[in-house]
Amino acid sequence: MSESELYQDSYKTRDLPAGLRLIEGGVTAAPGFRAGTLYCGIKSDPTPDLAMLVADEVCQVAATFTTSRTASHIIHVDKAHLAASGYRARAVVVNSGNANCSNGPRGLADAQRMTELTAQKLGLDPNLVLVSSTGIIGRPLPMEKVESGIADMQVADDGGPAYSRGIMTTDTRPKIIAVEFELGGTIVRLGGSTKGVGMIYPNMATMLCYLTTNAVLDHDFQHEVFRAAVNDSFNMVCVDHDMSTNDSAFLFANGQAGNAPVRAGTPEAETFAAALRYVTRYLAREMARDGEGATKLMIVKVRGAATDADARKAARGITSSAIWQCAVAGGDPNWGRVIAALGATGADVDHSRLDISLGDVLIVHEGVATAYDQAQAQQAMTGPDVYVNLHLHMGEATATAWGCDLTHGYIDENATYTR
Amino acid sequence: MSESELYQDSYKTRDLPAGLRLIEGGVTAAPGFRAGTLYCGIKSDPTPDLAMLVADEVCQVAATFTTSRTASHIIHVDKAHLAASGYRARAVVVNSGNANCSNGPRGLADAQRMTELTAQKLGLDPNLVLVSSTGIIGRPLPMEKVESGIADMQVADDGGPAYSRGIMTTDTRPKIIAVEFELGGTIVRLGGSTKGVGMIYPNMATMLCYLTTNAVLDHDFQHEVFRAAVNDSFNMVCVDHDMSTNDSAFLFANGQAGNAPVRAGTPEAETFAAALRYVTRYLAREMARDGEGATKLMIVKVRGAATDADARKAARGITSSAIWQCAVAGGDPNWGRVIAALGATGADVDHSRLDISLGDVLIVHEGVATAYDQAQAQQAMTGPDVYVNLHLHMGEATATAWGCDLTHGYIDENATYTR
Repeated sequence: MSESELYQDSYKTRDLPAGLRLIEGGVTAAPGFRAGTLYCGIKSDPTPDLAMLVADEVCQVAATFTTSRTASHIIHVDKAHLAASGYRARAVVVNSGNANCSNGPRGLADAQRMTELTAQKLGLDPNLVLVSSTGIIGRPLPMEKVESGIADMQVADDGGPAYSRGIMTTDTRPKIIAVEFELGGTIVRLGGSTKGVGMIYPNMATMLCYLTTNAVLDHDFQHEVFRAAVNDSFNMVCVDHDMSTNDSAFLFANGQAGNAPVRAGTPEAETFAAALRYVTRYLAREMARDGEGATKLMIVKVRGAATDADARKAARGITSSAIWQCAVAGGDPNWGRVIAALGATGADVDHSRLDISLGDVLIVHEGVATAYDQAQAQQAMTGPDVYVNLHLHMGEATATAWGCDLTHGYIDENATYTR
Repeated sequence: MSESELYQDSYKTRDLPAGLRLIEGGVTAAPGFRAGTLYCGIKSDPTPDLAMLVADEVCQVAATFTTSRTASHIIHVDKAHLAASGYRARAVVVNSGNANCSNGPRGLADAQRMTELTAQKLGLDPNLVLVSSTGIIGRPLPMEKVESGIADMQVADDGGPAYSRGIMTTDTRPKIIAVEFELGGTIVRLGGSTKGVGMIYPNMATMLCYLTTNAVLDHDFQHEVFRAAVNDSFNMVCVDHDMSTNDSAFLFANGQAGNAPVRAGTPEAETFAAALRYVTRYLAREMARDGEGATKLMIVKVRGAATDADARKAARGITSSAIWQCAVAGGDPNWGRVIAALGATGADVDHSRLDISLGDVLIVHEGVATAYDQAQAQQAMTGPDVYVNLHLHMGEATATAWGCDLTHGYIDENATYTR
């Protein structure tokens, strides 16, 4: 896929809020950020496996991490550095192809060493450097290669697209987006990239996410708005019900735009939140669409739930039903699988109130099959996007979750991953 | 598979407690039970789709049902009948090929009608008749065929094996077992059958289970021992992380053996509990082994957990990791998937204490890869049974869970189930 195709992705214009303009550049769209990538020899095939993002000034950082109890060594290093720096950073170094997880004291030392080498290269306090790793678990990092790679790394203010490729593992394409919008009279930018794409559940994903902005954000607001955005985006993606050891998401704000600090409860806060929500949801959806082996994006919208928690459980429960994912793969409108998946979530459901549509075709009304047209129902299961719309008629809460189909490709990709 | 092959199944002799003798007959092994099956036209292929189990005397019944919020109409009828009868019954009528779920008031009436017709045929109070259905959701039962089938049904005291076939849907083989043992000087029998085999998680399964015994059991003891057995067997099976709308399990005790009623806390209670545990765990394991598309049985044993809940979560989390199930299918000792699945369960884990073996090969010691032999590790992933043994070194609790690999066959079976 060429860079221009990447930017002409029609999914980018979906749900684009008024006032947002799509631009190029990803993590380097906002002024004051540089990025780069190279191949240092971690992966067996010579595709980029080391990437670096550098800010010209110290950034405020909001971050979320996997809740795995067997988290990678990088997670411990990043949490320690953010705590020491007061959630500030100037750089992140990322390797793909090796998760640096389950490597004991050596793994922790290697993660720490990656930040130290990057700090030395850039002349920074190591506490201002973060580190990510993604790939196979339980193999020590080839540190000689990593060290050479860090030494050789070049970053540039148009390096965002390259960076988006350097963080990939089994992704078939980069996930990259950036927008420009006005914030209280000042034009600001927000952009970023993610990598997926297996093990995306139940919180975050086998995913890394890097977002950058030049907006000036109040510290508390930045953390709150990022938490909310992650909750409605990366936490609503499912590829296969698994959760990874390395998941990390960051929002770097360098404050170069010079706008008045955005505080909660203001119109500017709403504008920034809408932009961040759009960007994170786009990237989340792209991870689902590029799920391992995926041929179809599944979009599940739940309305009328009694509570937000119920709406989220219901939507995610359907995206994560392997047996329904198979039906999506086969284009089979076997809505009984949706009923079963919904019932298993524990969300408060009155079977006799339930409406289910596949695309625009009302399949179930008040818990019973309508006289729907089978050909129309199958049509709704065909094509790259499959919409499952549920109305629970229990209350007012809504949620959207994204998933994909389950195909031979997923199995083939994971049956002999390390062999 | 011939009947004799079915009974010579080597998995039956695993973990067979001393004092138990394997016998034939399944649900009709115990005196006083008759069963039968026939094809009435629910399934498109002419394999048995209606089955009946009849007791000569009123039985005490212990039962557990799916916790799905979109449960089948049969679940509501059975719960009502058991409440009305004081947990007693004389018969159960089962259809396969149609779940009678999500059919509205008509579905409830049809489920009720199946019990009434069976009651009329046998001259019973309808409250003493239970009903099960399994198959496709959302299609009304063809009641004319069901009515003819009930009228034509013949039950016999050697009908257990036939019954085990009549309840099957996508099962490739019947699951049937029976044992004989001494209870306070009296020889008693316990036998039964289950059907699987997709959607087996997190509580029970797309499963039906019927157990019969002629032992005299104290009412409270029967319920308690059955609940405990289900918890360590059917609740520890995973094929694909889904839970069905129709799951039901029953233990019928007709009391014909005339032994002194077995009460909790006695040696006889221990003997009966061990037999029930053996039978239910055998049937649970068979469901995993015959999971849709499965080519390998996965047995996950967790030791050294801080609590029973942690041990269970850890064991089940590993069996239900789709990405690890793919590795099992491919024979890839990619133990990082086990680490990731374990971390995601939320069980209390200290990464640096963790030991993992695949079969007898110690792969991870104190959270780090050992210098294991790759060929030996691959050998442990080959063959029909894959053992994953974890020691968490956090406490004394243990658990065993059963699962299977994830193959193209699972997808093929579910991609066009209703098309």
